[in-house]
Amino acid sequence: MDKQAWPIGVFDSGLGGLTVVKEIKKLLPNVDLIYLGDTARVPYGTRSKETIRKFAKEDTRFLISKKVSCIVVACNTVSSLALDVVIKNSNVPVFGVIEPAIKKALEITKSKKIGIVGTRATVNSDAYKVATLRGHGSMLVPLVEEGFIEGAEINLFIDKYFKEFKGKVDTLILGCTHYPLIKSRINKYLGKNIKLVDPAEEVSKVIYEYIMRTDSFAGKKGIEKNKNAESKYFLTDVNERFLQTAKLFLGKDISKHIKKIEL
Amino acid sequence: MDKQAWPIGVFDSGLGGLTVVKEIKKLLPNVDLIYLGDTARVPYGTRSKETIRKFAKEDTRFLISKKVSCIVVACNTVSSLALDVVIKNSNVPVFGVIEPAIKKALEITKSKKIGIVGTRATVNSDAYKVATLRGHGSMLVPLVEEGFIEGAEINLFIDKYFKEFKGKVDTLILGCTHYPLIKSRINKYLGKNIKLVDPAEEVSKVIYEYIMRTDSFAGKKGIEKNKNAESKYFLTDVNERFLQTAKLFLGKDISKHIKKIEL
Repeated sequence: MDKQAWPIGVFDSGLGGLTVVKEIKKLLPNVDLIYLGDTARVPYGTRSKETIRKFAKEDTRFLISKKVSCIVVACNTVSSLALDVVIKNSNVPVFGVIEPAIKKALEITKSKKIGIVGTRATVNSDAYKVATLRGHGSMLVPLVEEGFIEGAEINLFIDKYFKEFKGKVDTLILGCTHYPLIKSRINKYLGKNIKLVDPAEEVSKVIYEYIMRTDSFAGKKGIEKNKNAESKYFLTDVNERFLQTAKLFLGKDISKHIKKIEL
Repeated sequence: MDKQAWPIGVFDSGLGGLTVVKEIKKLLPNVDLIYLGDTARVPYGTRSKETIRKFAKEDTRFLISKKVSCIVVACNTVSSLALDVVIKNSNVPVFGVIEPAIKKALEITKSKKIGIVGTRATVNSDAYKVATLRGHGSMLVPLVEEGFIEGAEINLFIDKYFKEFKGKVDTLILGCTHYPLIKSRINKYLGKNIKLVDPAEEVSKVIYEYIMRTDSFAGKKGIEKNKNAESKYFLTDVNERFLQTAKLFLGKDISKHIKKIEL
């Protein structure tokens, strides 16, 4: 394989990681990309650490077999509980979403009061040590996946999960790939006194900088020449519903570029 | 192994099948039982038919390896889409939850207008052909698993999913293992003009009759002598949260009888 074509690898427990792909493509429209979504076993956020680490290992090995130039762990749960597993099983650089999010939060907080909302697995982990207030938002994943991104249903749960942060923090990390879809509602609910950090945006900036300083065919040079950038999406399960969800997360139809695989 | 000790095998995508175990134990308190919950890959109801059938095959093979006397498919999704797979891979009798539920519905309906609510996979399948009105209740599974079995949240979604059945059917099949936990609320919401059918109750009666007419050590005779009945619970993933959910579904703590396995 020509080095020039070495793609960025992105993986997630399901389709939520497509919000990270969307951000990467905003900054790097010419990049080749391979996405893995473990839709046969989504969600990861409700499972044990042991199981999450097992799944993360399998996800990593798949991307490595596809000769990716780096691995982006789009999933907050895996980034929180199994980043070391990914690094151990990878022979290319690995980028998680936690560190860029924390860096951004520390940059913008004035009160040093930082909140984190994510899956139970994420908020119960040690990953977001910097957070002074943690809360899970477990129902937000199924709500977004079911398309409840506006209306009474999502408003009820935004109130339920985000109320405790009002007046307690000045910065809140949205620690789950599904939250960008309801970010404007969360923002409206919390008001201008709380600034939101979106890990998808932050990790994309890191990837951009990494690519731009990599002066090789796999980096800046390669990308500049790569006018016919290609993205491939590998999913462990595919049905009509997953295709709809993918469209919701990425903002475009990728049905023709999806391939079903087994891990 | 002594035939007398041959247990009933029950499997489900996760812990919802414990509502079926609860009903079986009401009728057969002395029965030995082996439960398999695929908690590492729950839920099944959002996945493709192909994947559900693959998982069902693995679930069946596990129970067969444990020398069960029969297999109860507690999961409505598997009963709807993969009962033939279970039968094909089993050398003992197999009981699904669909047929007993349909039988009961046909017994009690006067208008011949029968409704079914279940996962998308279940209601989109051909299993409930008898139903004149079908609706999915996708958010009810995560709501119940998150403990929202009373209050504004569950009421909002009961209204959302059950409204369409009012005045349209006189009998409604609750086609998902999670619904028994909110049955009284659904009943209150729909009123006395709609009768509810709980597949867990109906399949338990079938199992009871099967055991009672099996005049062998594995049947009636064995059970009468089996004063120290034992239940074993095998899960593909275990964490604190799953133990809480198990307690919610079964009404008692089974933490000491749970073993983690891989399929």
